[in-house]
Amino acid sequence: MARISKPAGEPMGRALRSGLQDQLLCGRQAPAPRPQRGQPPPRPATCSRSRALRSPSLPRATSRPAVRARGHRCRLLQEVGSFVRSTFNGQLVPDQVFPFPSGRRAWAGPALPLPLLCRVKEVNDPTKNEKLESIEEATLAGLKAMGAFGLQVPEELGGVGLTNTQYARMVEVVGVHDLGVGISLGAHQSIGFKGILLFGTKSQKEKYLPKLASGETVAAFCLTEPSSGSDAASIQTMAEPSACGNFYTLNGGKIWISNGGTAEIFTVFAKTPVKERTGEVTEKISAFIVERAFGGVTSGPPEKKMGIKCSNTAEVHFDNVKVPAENLLGELGKGFNVAMNILNNGRFGMASALAGTMRGVIVKAVRHAAARTQFGNKISRYGAIQEKIARMAMLHYVTESMAYMLSANMDMRVPDYKLEAAISKIFASEAAWHVTDECIQVLGGMGYMQETGVEKVMRDLRIFRIFEGTNDILRLFVALVGIEVMTCGLCPTLPSPGRGGEGMQGPGAIGISTGSSLQGIVHPDLDGSVDLVGALGVTRVAASLRSLPSDKQFHLKRIADAAIDIYAMAVVLSRATRSLSLGQPTAEHEKLLCQTWCHEVGPRPGPSWEWVCVAKQVRLEGLRAEPIPSSRGGESQTLRCAEHPSSAPRLRSGDARGWLLGAGGWGIAPNRH
Amino acid sequence: MARISKPAGEPMGRALRSGLQDQLLCGRQAPAPRPQRGQPPPRPATCSRSRALRSPSLPRATSRPAVRARGHRCRLLQEVGSFVRSTFNGQLVPDQVFPFPSGRRAWAGPALPLPLLCRVKEVNDPTKNEKLESIEEATLAGLKAMGAFGLQVPEELGGVGLTNTQYARMVEVVGVHDLGVGISLGAHQSIGFKGILLFGTKSQKEKYLPKLASGETVAAFCLTEPSSGSDAASIQTMAEPSACGNFYTLNGGKIWISNGGTAEIFTVFAKTPVKERTGEVTEKISAFIVERAFGGVTSGPPEKKMGIKCSNTAEVHFDNVKVPAENLLGELGKGFNVAMNILNNGRFGMASALAGTMRGVIVKAVRHAAARTQFGNKISRYGAIQEKIARMAMLHYVTESMAYMLSANMDMRVPDYKLEAAISKIFASEAAWHVTDECIQVLGGMGYMQETGVEKVMRDLRIFRIFEGTNDILRLFVALVGIEVMTCGLCPTLPSPGRGGEGMQGPGAIGISTGSSLQGIVHPDLDGSVDLVGALGVTRVAASLRSLPSDKQFHLKRIADAAIDIYAMAVVLSRATRSLSLGQPTAEHEKLLCQTWCHEVGPRPGPSWEWVCVAKQVRLEGLRAEPIPSSRGGESQTLRCAEHPSSAPRLRSGDARGWLLGAGGWGIAPNRH
Ligand SMILES: Cc1cc2nc3c(=O)[nH]c(=O)nc-3n(C[C@H](O)[C@H](O)[C@H](O)COP(=O)(O)OP(=O)(O)OC[C@H]3O[C@@H](n4cnc5c(N)ncnc54)[C@H](O)[C@@H]3O)c2cc1C
Ligand SMILES: Cc1cc2nc3c(=O)[nH]c(=O)nc-3n(C[C@H](O)[C@H](O)[C@H](O)COP(=O)(O)OP(=O)(O)OC[C@H]3O[C@@H](n4cnc5c(N)ncnc54)[C@H](O)[C@@H]3O)c2cc1C
Repeated sequence: MARISKPAGEPMGRALRSGLQDQLLCGRQAPAPRPQRGQPPPRPATCSRSRALRSPSLPRATSRPAVRARGHRCRLLQEVGSFVRSTFNGQLVPDQVFPFPSGRRAWAGPALPLPLLCRVKEVNDPTKNEKLESIEEATLAGLKAMGAFGLQVPEELGGVGLTNTQYARMVEVVGVHDLGVGISLGAHQSIGFKGILLFGTKSQKEKYLPKLASGETVAAFCLTEPSSGSDAASIQTMAEPSACGNFYTLNGGKIWISNGGTAEIFTVFAKTPVKERTGEVTEKISAFIVERAFGGVTSGPPEKKMGIKCSNTAEVHFDNVKVPAENLLGELGKGFNVAMNILNNGRFGMASALAGTMRGVIVKAVRHAAARTQFGNKISRYGAIQEKIARMAMLHYVTESMAYMLSANMDMRVPDYKLEAAISKIFASEAAWHVTDECIQVLGGMGYMQETGVEKVMRDLRIFRIFEGTNDILRLFVALVGIEVMTCGLCPTLPSPGRGGEGMQGPGAIGISTGSSLQGIVHPDLDGSVDLVGALGVTRVAASLRSLPSDKQFHLKRIADAAIDIYAMAVVLSRATRSLSLGQPTAEHEKLLCQTWCHEVGPRPGPSWEWVCVAKQVRLEGLRAEPIPSSRGGESQTLRCAEHPSSAPRLRSGDARGWLLGAGGWGIAPNRH
Repeated sequence: MARISKPAGEPMGRALRSGLQDQLLCGRQAPAPRPQRGQPPPRPATCSRSRALRSPSLPRATSRPAVRARGHRCRLLQEVGSFVRSTFNGQLVPDQVFPFPSGRRAWAGPALPLPLLCRVKEVNDPTKNEKLESIEEATLAGLKAMGAFGLQVPEELGGVGLTNTQYARMVEVVGVHDLGVGISLGAHQSIGFKGILLFGTKSQKEKYLPKLASGETVAAFCLTEPSSGSDAASIQTMAEPSACGNFYTLNGGKIWISNGGTAEIFTVFAKTPVKERTGEVTEKISAFIVERAFGGVTSGPPEKKMGIKCSNTAEVHFDNVKVPAENLLGELGKGFNVAMNILNNGRFGMASALAGTMRGVIVKAVRHAAARTQFGNKISRYGAIQEKIARMAMLHYVTESMAYMLSANMDMRVPDYKLEAAISKIFASEAAWHVTDECIQVLGGMGYMQETGVEKVMRDLRIFRIFEGTNDILRLFVALVGIEVMTCGLCPTLPSPGRGGEGMQGPGAIGISTGSSLQGIVHPDLDGSVDLVGALGVTRVAASLRSLPSDKQFHLKRIADAAIDIYAMAVVLSRATRSLSLGQPTAEHEKLLCQTWCHEVGPRPGPSWEWVCVAKQVRLEGLRAEPIPSSRGGESQTLRCAEHPSSAPRLRSGDARGWLLGAGGWGIAPNRH
């Protein structure tokens, strides 16, 4: 901890909030101009990207038209559509991906997270949290003192005022250390009061944010109900307006609310009667800021979970809660949009935290492999271990690149990033799971012991593929947006900034298209890898979409997988290009990671599409999904015990059409509300 | 529980031990001739296999030469080599795989496991065990009363005298219910005292087995030491013979011993000085039966683990323990062989238990999918859920088929089954992991809650890929045996029965070869699937072996994967053939499972081999496996915190050759001892 030049006793929160933070903490880097919230996007970051690509070490790239047009990037970035969306049109619009964002701008030097990690470790003991199944007051006090409860709240409202990129770096540190605490902090600020930040009125912000930022009050996000998980649009909680128009009466029950038992401030989604232009009254979702102090708010005991045990998860009940009309968050009847925007906006943090987690377990695996001798050698010398660790490193490289890319783009107010956000969440949660699983395997029996802490990470991680949109639902979302793009043959509307926007139809496309290749944009050393993106990836996806029945989830999943693969390749091609162009010390290593990744993943959209055909051939969709009856001796009752249903349900080829056209829901038919 | 015609209060153990067991329990099936231990293999089972294939519903198959030769099976089964081994020669020797064993013979009717499950559930509460991190006396007493501690001990020595097939069906039931208890029971009888069953003298058996069978004493298997996990041959525990020759003095420490804290009888592996024929004295491993009562045996506190918490795992220390010379187990200096045979012999039980586990979680997933409504439909109607459950069902079908096949072959005294046993362990532990993971996903948030019990199963399962040979080591073992086969171009020696045998060199091959196709053996409806086995699978493996440097683990893993795929296809082709031939009610369903499996897996040996080439091309093996330094701003110290090593170790292309030729070890170079 040689780099912490501040006395250990002094709360870091104050340091974070002072203009001298970076100098104080890393003791050697002058602070960069601090991006001001509410002002135009921090252009210097954008321009530094362009500078990177103009470096003399990338002669071929700079001489090509697509790159010459790059001077317009600052403007264009806020106008053009998403990279992933463009792939569904058989095009690569690389503006959101090239050049890779510079790290320098993230934190006026990358040194802060390190002392922060040390500091977090000082105040927080993950094992103790896990055992207590809660976070002790002293720990919370330490985190509050650091400013950890209001990282993105503007400084004038008592927060640290971090950009998304800075926030991403911070949660990466928390992700290394304790995902349980990460969820508690994330439920508070990444979703709990994010609605107030994004949609709150000035007076709502002034009233609530200072106490939330200091941690004096804790927030929670209340969407899920017993019968509404993935289908969040089907919630039953009701908010009836009073005759006088001064308040709403809130009734209903929410489940599995993170911080549900500890929060004082809740962002609650409820149905409200809304008068349409036609005069008809329909029930639509609205969002409300609800205080526990309003009365009628109760919460259940903490749920017993597989992991993130210190993070409180509880039912929250609203029983005739009187909510003042001024606590409506966003427009009446637009609550679903509020919810989706909050989740969408929060996803980058998840990718970032998990990149941190992966980094942490890779360090453990490498250390163990380098120390453990079996069969006369350090096990790190064996190819089986090397392949595992190399693969872990590759997955981490992709995840981290996605996280950095996404947060930087959000800082530049890129309007349409929701496909990229969904992909980052899917990829990060699956990559982290795989990497941690492999870490346990490298550790052998030690990996199964609680004392090494990796099994805890694994348990903590399991929820990340489920909450804030299951990965399955997010895959459907990605593919269905793709189909929409194909169907209307148009690029999306530009949604109003700050609203994140779900617009899927509208006027024509803007943006630079490179056709279906990244040749000339990536560093020439990586050209071999690029062909794969161009030739295999995009073309395949576009082709498959054109010939597909859009209502088959079996196909949709494969389309999403192809889109994920393509985006993952693009992101590492961008990052490795930057490193090679700048001649960074890690460039050759990154080149290898990038090339290997592209070689392994590039061909996948091919096979995965052929897979669809093979599986269709043998009618996989027609498989009955019962537990297989035993065929032994012609008897099949083995499991037909009294408490098992006498005939298991038969799953037949699903009529996904009905669902697609039908009751619709969040993430899937984002335009419904 | 309508089928249990016995009064619930009566201990099942007594029923199990009575000759009337089956009639009593299932109330409708006459008991089949009970296989007698120590007598010739139970031929009726073999013949019933042949009968199945001779059924009139398989006209094409019966008219072909390979099938006509089948009359000799009873003799041949005990003479020919393993199916998997034969594939490495580019041949398919199907005798161990076709026809699929009949279930009827397993238990004189398949009904027993069902009431047993109910009975086990009566005496055992998995949640309570997990919470207590031990198994209560009352529960143990209930299990003992059922005979669960001596399932394979001959009846005359107080056990239930089950065949391997019967044992497999029993542990399948335990696997559905509680893997923690399964491990405790397995550590006791599947490895703990299995050595006495397999290698014990008459007086050792008579002295120890009755009390072990009744559960009066508990056994443990003591191989692993702090510096010897996978490399079991490197153990340091010493047993010095006394000058008088009457006893050995045992010193050393074992770790992670299941039942280590609760057992009274230990099978302990230790180095002993052995005089070679040359007169030279070398240290070789010997096995001993050690009683806690000998004095000097101490054990540590139970380890804190990710799962199987009720199963006691502890250190065991031997401090000048005086072990009588008559407690040497097997021959002096042949202890490594004893250990490997015990593990090898026990693996079928693991596959079987995990088939049960999978069945249990699939039932949970199906029930939930059929009950849960989202977006206006039961989620079971959605293709994404259907695909998951179909895939779970497929993996379960393969695992269960492997388990049934292996135990039946062992009952028929097939001499060489260790590749199949290794593959079954690898496959079952990975399939169960995947299936349980998907069950959690289908359950959504519910899956993460302790109350549904699936997260516990997942935690319990994680150890199965690590202990009794990590899957990675077992893969190397499979591939290295393959290379041996290729290198000497010979089929293996026939090891002496009961010794399981590790012979890898020796006189020529015996057995029926069908060349590289199963055409004519499998049911004609499955012919499309067969081509894949013949054409793609075997040829590829053989070809890859011929051109491969044998010391690269990266390649070895892929060879093992191909062998696993081929065996998995063969096993389900066999089982589906049987069902189709007998016109069983589940035949069409099994056909679909089998075909889908072969279509998905069949092509894999191709790509996975090409994968080797691709990866070679980009030099994956040369990847440095450090945690990736951040390339942001050219800085790379992000994680170089005080407690992180300043330069992470570099993993370079491993010189696996040294290891292969060098210190060698268990499972890898099985002929060393
Ligand atoms: C620890 C924890 C913390 C949480 N924190 C919060 C919180 O702070 N705030 C909050 O509001 N919620 C929270 N949740 C709820 C979480 O967001 C939901 O669990 C998640 O949205 C999934 O919903 P579900 O569990 O009801 O699953 P379901 O929606 O019932 O889904 C079950 C399965 O069906 C699949 N499925 C559903 N619909 C379809 C379809 N149409 N097609 C194909 N497949 C489908 C899903 O992918 C999943 O595999 C939390 C949950 C947990 C476990
Ligand atoms: C809960 C539990 C119960 C157990 N019960 C028992 C018991 O009852 N009796 C008993 O004797 N033991 C028992 N064990 C020990 C268990 O068998 C070992 O953990 C296992 O053999 C692996 O050894 P290890 O943990 O030392 O891993 P290591 O051998 O150190 O392996 C670490 C990693 O290196 C890999 N590796 C090792 N060598 C090579 C190589 N040459 N090439 C490539 N990769 C390699 C491994 O695959 C693994 O991924 C138990 C362990 C646990 C956790």
